[in-house]
Amino acid sequence: MNLSIPKGTRDFSPEEMVKRDYIFDAIKQVFKLYGYQPVETPAMENLSILTGKYGDEGDKLLFKILNSGNFLRDVPAELLAEDKILPLTNQISEKGLRYDLTVPFARYVVQHRNDIILPFKRYQIQPVWRADRPQKGRYREFFQCDADVIGSASLLNEVELLQIIDSVFSKLHLDVTVKLNNRKILGGIAEIMGQSDRLIDITVAVDKIEKAGIDAVKEELRSKDISDEQIKILEPVLFLSGSNEEKLNRMEEILSGSETGLYGIAELRKILNYVGKLSISTPIELDLSLARGLNYYTGTIIEVKACNADMGSICGGGRYDNLTGIFGLKNVSGVGISFGADRIYDVLSAKNLFPQSSLETTRVMFANMGVNEEIYCLPALQEIRNSGISAEIYPEQAKLKRQLEYADKRNIPFVVIAGEAEMTSEKFLLKNMNNKSQKELSLRRLLNEIIIL
Amino acid sequence: MNLSIPKGTRDFSPEEMVKRDYIFDAIKQVFKLYGYQPVETPAMENLSILTGKYGDEGDKLLFKILNSGNFLRDVPAELLAEDKILPLTNQISEKGLRYDLTVPFARYVVQHRNDIILPFKRYQIQPVWRADRPQKGRYREFFQCDADVIGSASLLNEVELLQIIDSVFSKLHLDVTVKLNNRKILGGIAEIMGQSDRLIDITVAVDKIEKAGIDAVKEELRSKDISDEQIKILEPVLFLSGSNEEKLNRMEEILSGSETGLYGIAELRKILNYVGKLSISTPIELDLSLARGLNYYTGTIIEVKACNADMGSICGGGRYDNLTGIFGLKNVSGVGISFGADRIYDVLSAKNLFPQSSLETTRVMFANMGVNEEIYCLPALQEIRNSGISAEIYPEQAKLKRQLEYADKRNIPFVVIAGEAEMTSEKFLLKNMNNKSQKELSLRRLLNEIIIL
Repeated sequence: MNLSIPKGTRDFSPEEMVKRDYIFDAIKQVFKLYGYQPVETPAMENLSILTGKYGDEGDKLLFKILNSGNFLRDVPAELLAEDKILPLTNQISEKGLRYDLTVPFARYVVQHRNDIILPFKRYQIQPVWRADRPQKGRYREFFQCDADVIGSASLLNEVELLQIIDSVFSKLHLDVTVKLNNRKILGGIAEIMGQSDRLIDITVAVDKIEKAGIDAVKEELRSKDISDEQIKILEPVLFLSGSNEEKLNRMEEILSGSETGLYGIAELRKILNYVGKLSISTPIELDLSLARGLNYYTGTIIEVKACNADMGSICGGGRYDNLTGIFGLKNVSGVGISFGADRIYDVLSAKNLFPQSSLETTRVMFANMGVNEEIYCLPALQEIRNSGISAEIYPEQAKLKRQLEYADKRNIPFVVIAGEAEMTSEKFLLKNMNNKSQKELSLRRLLNEIIIL
Repeated sequence: MNLSIPKGTRDFSPEEMVKRDYIFDAIKQVFKLYGYQPVETPAMENLSILTGKYGDEGDKLLFKILNSGNFLRDVPAELLAEDKILPLTNQISEKGLRYDLTVPFARYVVQHRNDIILPFKRYQIQPVWRADRPQKGRYREFFQCDADVIGSASLLNEVELLQIIDSVFSKLHLDVTVKLNNRKILGGIAEIMGQSDRLIDITVAVDKIEKAGIDAVKEELRSKDISDEQIKILEPVLFLSGSNEEKLNRMEEILSGSETGLYGIAELRKILNYVGKLSISTPIELDLSLARGLNYYTGTIIEVKACNADMGSICGGGRYDNLTGIFGLKNVSGVGISFGADRIYDVLSAKNLFPQSSLETTRVMFANMGVNEEIYCLPALQEIRNSGISAEIYPEQAKLKRQLEYADKRNIPFVVIAGEAEMTSEKFLLKNMNNKSQKELSLRRLLNEIIIL
């Protein structure tokens, strides 16, 4: 019998779950501390909501649900052909699995606009599904962890998101660097080059400077019909160096002719000014080659990378001025970030940063020595649990060796053994599974020993 | 534009999420205290795993995923007809959404049998999907919260599940009654009636005694060709009364001729004996008409009802001896319970049992009085969050009235206002939104005021 699960999907074992929840809990706790409120949307959305929002490639990657019952009823016979796959699909499938959390959130906001109090700070942690070709680190079912504020153009929101990033990764003891950019600065650069409509070509080329060098960038720009004269205007931007302040001063000169560009610089200045007044330990670095989500973001662009790790961005986001426009609600500005839980998981694993306590599921196991012993142990077990400590009794009266093996494999740090002698003296024998030491203790003293400090 | 979500599915607003999480957190905390470990499986399973496990009706209710790409490739033309819907479906759809957590768990256990340490205590809280006709309280996407122990036949597991039920509902401050039965007792009754193969007919009829009365039960039994003589044997069972102990004693006499029946009584006695030694406050009541999951359970049967509520069972479970048999792994006994989160939500709502603190998302909001005030407030905000208290600053410099309205609508209990005067004296004005009182305080004293006791 074939017992496999669909390609690109995963079972999460207890060991994986406790690690994953360690990450989710850290993120959730921080979101909550900043007043973000949880929202969830259904796994299925009507395909009319999803289709056309992710480009042609994205449409192909949507998982579609076959209509229930006789799905061929009312389907014209001429659609039943391989070259009619697209219209046929529309006839036999009305619903799809969500592809990200952003489009369902936009739909949520517009649908519930009369109940939502703006500014609306929401977080959402749910799986999404994409019929992508599975490969290392890319799954067909994976979690997104998003936080967004909509209905406020204030840059305080950006500052807060940077604080959130700092708090989450501090909590996870992971050193990261934040890179910051602003779409308006990129727009200003294109503007002074006289190439406002070529913004994407320019940033795609500039993005390659670190890996390929200046000559490769120039060549690519030339191949896009950007003249040497225009490239000359761009060159100082490519060689920007120094502190954030120095970079901003230099850019201010370069962009003196672009209102949009200067506006972007003023935004970044304001954000960095606020950040400077807060004790944020994460380095925040201006990076004008940062161009993620350029079709989407309209202001601040944020990207987070783990230090000393061979891994792409583990968190990113930015400001968008038209999230809900696709569903007819104009002029709702928003800014948000998304944590890449799978990548954070891989980085923490590689760096061995999951704390031992996050891996523990049961703190103390009572060995099972017989019927009378069970009855002696059960109230003690209950008292331990009442103190908030995870505890279990081995359910079978198996050989002690086997019971200890079970505790060992489960990584349970303490085992309690109570036989005739202990019952007579109203004590319990506490065995430390790490150093193999054991002590005979009253229940009160035993509780003190196993409490988590 | 149609912005609706698929029929029978739900968005969860922040208000609903915090209530739902209040329930999930209570259940999860208790599962963990008893050493149950979390597991998750993918939303999609191969249809070969799901089909045939829930009866013909269940098969129809599976949500099926349309194969990606050109799903008609290799489909023989003769299948493209309405009367070939079933074989056609098999050709164009390989995957389905999970229908419950039990079958995926069975698949998980068999697939990972070499990595699992028995006994295996797992919990799983995930949504499931059924293409059922939506109606009040019945959704097409809903959560199941299951805990099971497999690989142990010990009745201690049953005792523990009863403790878990007691702990969860104590935590939720909901009065419930547990009903207990044993499939072997029902089998014994059918046996002494000489109708072992008619067990289900008999229990379906007996189940109606409370609502329809003894005459209706007798009539139904006669209609199923059960003789008056056989009904006479059954009659004392129908009029069983008194304490659990009295009921068991009476049943022991009645079932003296059935080994199976006596075994069921011994099991129940042992469970009730253990339970009596623990301080379980939930009443546990023997109910021989309890016959849930009769095709499935082989021993103990458990059902939980809320007291004084017009609602069916809110939690249930039992022992099954052959969970993994469907996937070829024999002789793995298990016992489990499932909490009905939606019904618990409805009961807690109706009884107004959600505590105020569970509904609060932000504890203190700083009003936004201007740029200098923002900079004065931000470090204070950070210190409050560092104390574990959810706090936010209104991001826009809007009119104070509007900011207070926002705090009011969001049910934020405290608002901090700091203007010129407060900045000069290094104080903050704390406004209690419930009683409208306000005090000027240092940050230290402010923290003491808003701390959650």
